[in-house]
Amino acid sequence: MDARDLALVEKYADCLQIGTRNMQNFSLLKEVGRSHLPVLLKRGYSARISDLIMSAEYILSEGNMNVLLCERGIRTFENATRYTLDLNAVPLLKSKTHLPVVVDPTHGIGLRDFVPQMALAAVAAGADAVMIEVHDSPQFAKSDGEQAIVPEVFADLVPRLRAVAEAVGRRM
Amino acid sequence: MDARDLALVEKYADCLQIGTRNMQNFSLLKEVGRSHLPVLLKRGYSARISDLIMSAEYILSEGNMNVLLCERGIRTFENATRYTLDLNAVPLLKSKTHLPVVVDPTHGIGLRDFVPQMALAAVAAGADAVMIEVHDSPQFAKSDGEQAIVPEVFADLVPRLRAVAEAVGRRM
Amino acid sequence: MDARDLALVEKYADCLQIGTRNMQNFSLLKEVGRSHLPVLLKRGYSARISDLIMSAEYILSEGNMNVLLCERGIRTFENATRYTLDLNAVPLLKSKTHLPVVVDPTHGIGLRDFVPQMALAAVAAGADAVMIEVHDSPQFAKSDGEQAIVPEVFADLVPRLRAVAEAVGRRM
Amino acid sequence: MDARDLALVEKYADCLQIGTRNMQNFSLLKEVGRSHLPVLLKRGYSARISDLIMSAEYILSEGNMNVLLCERGIRTFENATRYTLDLNAVPLLKSKTHLPVVVDPTHGIGLRDFVPQMALAAVAAGADAVMIEVHDSPQFAKSDGEQAIVPEVFADLVPRLRAVAEAVGRRM
Repeated sequence: MDARDLALVEKYADCLQIGTRNMQNFSLLKEVGRSHLPVLLKRGYSARISDLIMSAEYILSEGNMNVLLCERGIRTFENATRYTLDLNAVPLLKSKTHLPVVVDPTHGIGLRDFVPQMALAAVAAGADAVMIEVHDSPQFAKSDGEQAIVPEVFADLVPRLRAVAEAVGRRM
Repeated sequence: MDARDLALVEKYADCLQIGTRNMQNFSLLKEVGRSHLPVLLKRGYSARISDLIMSAEYILSEGNMNVLLCERGIRTFENATRYTLDLNAVPLLKSKTHLPVVVDPTHGIGLRDFVPQMALAAVAAGADAVMIEVHDSPQFAKSDGEQAIVPEVFADLVPRLRAVAEAVGRRM
Repeated sequence: MDARDLALVEKYADCLQIGTRNMQNFSLLKEVGRSHLPVLLKRGYSARISDLIMSAEYILSEGNMNVLLCERGIRTFENATRYTLDLNAVPLLKSKTHLPVVVDPTHGIGLRDFVPQMALAAVAAGADAVMIEVHDSPQFAKSDGEQAIVPEVFADLVPRLRAVAEAVGRRM
Repeated sequence: MDARDLALVEKYADCLQIGTRNMQNFSLLKEVGRSHLPVLLKRGYSARISDLIMSAEYILSEGNMNVLLCERGIRTFENATRYTLDLNAVPLLKSKTHLPVVVDPTHGIGLRDFVPQMALAAVAAGADAVMIEVHDSPQFAKSDGEQAIVPEVFADLVPRLRAVAEAVGRRM
């Protein structure tokens, strides 16, 4: 999304997502800071936790207080997974800000078979929400098909997420 | 531990630990491969998951089948935490080997306040065990004091670990 | 620079620089691809060499063939320097593209005392140009003062850069 | 090399090399610290510059002052090269210690075609020596064949290394 497209997007969308490659696109951050819609700010895949918080400040300082911080995996030397999901960021972000913390295990590991385990781990670490890509025919997905889970797997996951949430004193 | 010290250590220890800096000390790996004691092999802080598995092979190939693989955090650009605990490694290792997977959240985040959350996340991700440093006076600890939790925190954590383990279909 | 500011910037500037945090700001890349000015495209501090080349494609595909690729340091676990200057990228980029390769040793090491050595190394590695920050009173610089060299150091460096260039068969 | 093999190796070798995977094998470091032979200490591929210096201290503190520090590439997210040769380490190590600094461009980039450029860059950055793998039939090499250069390329490189050394005020 470009800053110029914001009016159009706002007309139809319920939430604005700033993708990992735009986390330090400061003019865009200020623009969405003037929106009335909530903003899901994804951590840059090489951003430090402090960078993410400072990017959130650009939005907050324009008056938009509805910011969600999203951990979605960082780039490391490990090449068996697409990214390294940094769950350390969850309790750290929650201790340093009052903003809700979302985890995206789908991008964070990039391998469909292991998305459920990482979603469960995210909730146990204290995440306020998880976002998971689901596709009924991932083999035909236009992007990221290898990491989307099918509806049956998602349906099986939901009660387990609820159980873990309850085990750590949360409700879903 | 040096290969030469093995006989002495074997006399008193119940388990041999290969530390992160020795994960690719191949002569030591072969030596403990000839021991009758179980070996906890910690992942090098810059080892890929495939490197860890190959190091385990050095032990297994000498006849010692009691090897535990331990994720304990990797080195990344993030500097708010001591290491980045790579929980992606848990389901991946469990899919690629039959060996038990242990997680060390203490070193993996390096900050006492967040060890419990990461221990819970490790169990939710499928870890077979967690190892946690506990010290009754961490301020006087000779090493790693800033990451040790006190016995009260540990006592509070155990039932929560049990609850998460049950939530993901395990028993403790 | 925002895509909306391009007309204004074009009126005064001789060259458009895409900074490291905008290397994957695709709408901006396409915008400068329609400009008549040359574009200095800085590598994202966590971009792979292949990512940099693909970002250049966004500019080239809009018709602007005057693209310069700039290595300026990547983020690694090393914390004694601000970034890790990846001079491996120089011969690699030159083998994979026909575009000129620029090196920014100032950001690449981030420490004034060592900028000259890294500039010399860049030329020896085959860089077509180096860009170096010079400030006559770095202690008063509004940004990046700790890495700017003073004019006397720069004057001393130029003949040495020329000598290294000649030693590797280039002219300056 | 294992600490136990030292006496045998000392009988035949002119220099002891501690490989990248043993840089923090502290018992081995102390052992070679008691040797009369010079020690080439290779930087661990994930060791910080400060870690390398501390490992050198283990050798020096046992009385062996003939230690050479060797930069040989670090592990990063870049996957177009085998490692990322960290030439920033050269001027930094030279400013922090009195020890000679060696660069291994062969492992540092891992691709035969680009070894000469990186060797030249190392000398320009201030390296006291470079070590380069040469093989007359790299396709039959038992290890690391894809990064060894052939004797003709080496012969062509030497005068260029000399020219760069002279350009930066050194002699070869």
